[in-house]
Amino acid sequence: MKTDPPRGDSTRVRIQHAAVTSFADKGFHGTSTRDIAAAAGMSSAGMYVHHRSKEELLYEISKAGHETTLRLVRDASATHTDPQEALAQLVHDFVFHHAHAHTTARVINYELASLAPQHYAVIRELRRDIEHEVRRLVTRGVDAGRFDVPDPEILAAALLSLGIDLARWYRDDGRWTPEQIATRYVELALRMAGV
Amino acid sequence: MKTDPPRGDSTRVRIQHAAVTSFADKGFHGTSTRDIAAAAGMSSAGMYVHHRSKEELLYEISKAGHETTLRLVRDASATHTDPQEALAQLVHDFVFHHAHAHTTARVINYELASLAPQHYAVIRELRRDIEHEVRRLVTRGVDAGRFDVPDPEILAAALLSLGIDLARWYRDDGRWTPEQIATRYVELALRMAGV
Repeated sequence: MKTDPPRGDSTRVRIQHAAVTSFADKGFHGTSTRDIAAAAGMSSAGMYVHHRSKEELLYEISKAGHETTLRLVRDASATHTDPQEALAQLVHDFVFHHAHAHTTARVINYELASLAPQHYAVIRELRRDIEHEVRRLVTRGVDAGRFDVPDPEILAAALLSLGIDLARWYRDDGRWTPEQIATRYVELALRMAGV
Repeated sequence: MKTDPPRGDSTRVRIQHAAVTSFADKGFHGTSTRDIAAAAGMSSAGMYVHHRSKEELLYEISKAGHETTLRLVRDASATHTDPQEALAQLVHDFVFHHAHAHTTARVINYELASLAPQHYAVIRELRRDIEHEVRRLVTRGVDAGRFDVPDPEILAAALLSLGIDLARWYRDDGRWTPEQIATRYVELALRMAGV
């Protein structure tokens, strides 16, 4: 039997969605709690019932987004024993995700300085885990003699840049679908890895 | 005989520098004219003498920055008849510049939405010229049979991303100098171009 989510959850999702859109549009500092309430179709008083500050909302969005990315990167790496297949899957999924969810990606990658210090510390760890996972996969391919890479850390940085920068330039009405970019970027990634 | 720049120019440079630092630090919307005046060591009244709004400052910074990048890209392309040498020079200079001037690069790439529409139109044209120049060089290499590239527009997008994303992650106290990153990224670019 399919049921609607509990009322509290649906309001929570609605507020988060409104916050992402507002932050992406006007920046964290340019967005007021009132803007978010309006975008969520609520009164400011309604927002206050949920006791959520702008910064808490940014943190929730950022934490969920980074956890999704970390899971995706770990899954790709763990699913394939062959490093080349793992790299292809990782780049595909990372790139597809950043194009598809470019609005959220914009907020969580470009508003790090707006997080409170204790929240930033949590997000920084998640980012380090993501970077570490990408580096580890590149090193795995080098150690197995499958990749020819002069500097694995630089390659990892370049691969992350290709995905993250989509948050800046990708448009839903642009010339490429997320799948098209992901497919092409996999080819470029394998070339960079010297496969 | 070495002379100091005229006083007006030096104040102008001081205000621009203060604005870049403040915008990069707190975002355009998070920065007040008072913040910029304080960072420039001036009174708010002193700023008003110059009749410059925050947005005008952002536009001046953005225009100068994009003109520098366009010149750099055009020079690299025009200096070498060999497409491979031209691509190496273009990627080197583009990457070096974005690492070296990462604070300015951050402001001019991530605050486009804060520009007034008539100013954004000017900057958008400069960005199109830059993108066009990179695409044209890739196509030149393909036409000459020197590059093996399934989709020149995607390669151009990837090359631009590698440079621009440095504005997000590059740190002066990080592990690589601008020259080291530029050298490594040239190798990656040539691999992507199928050289």
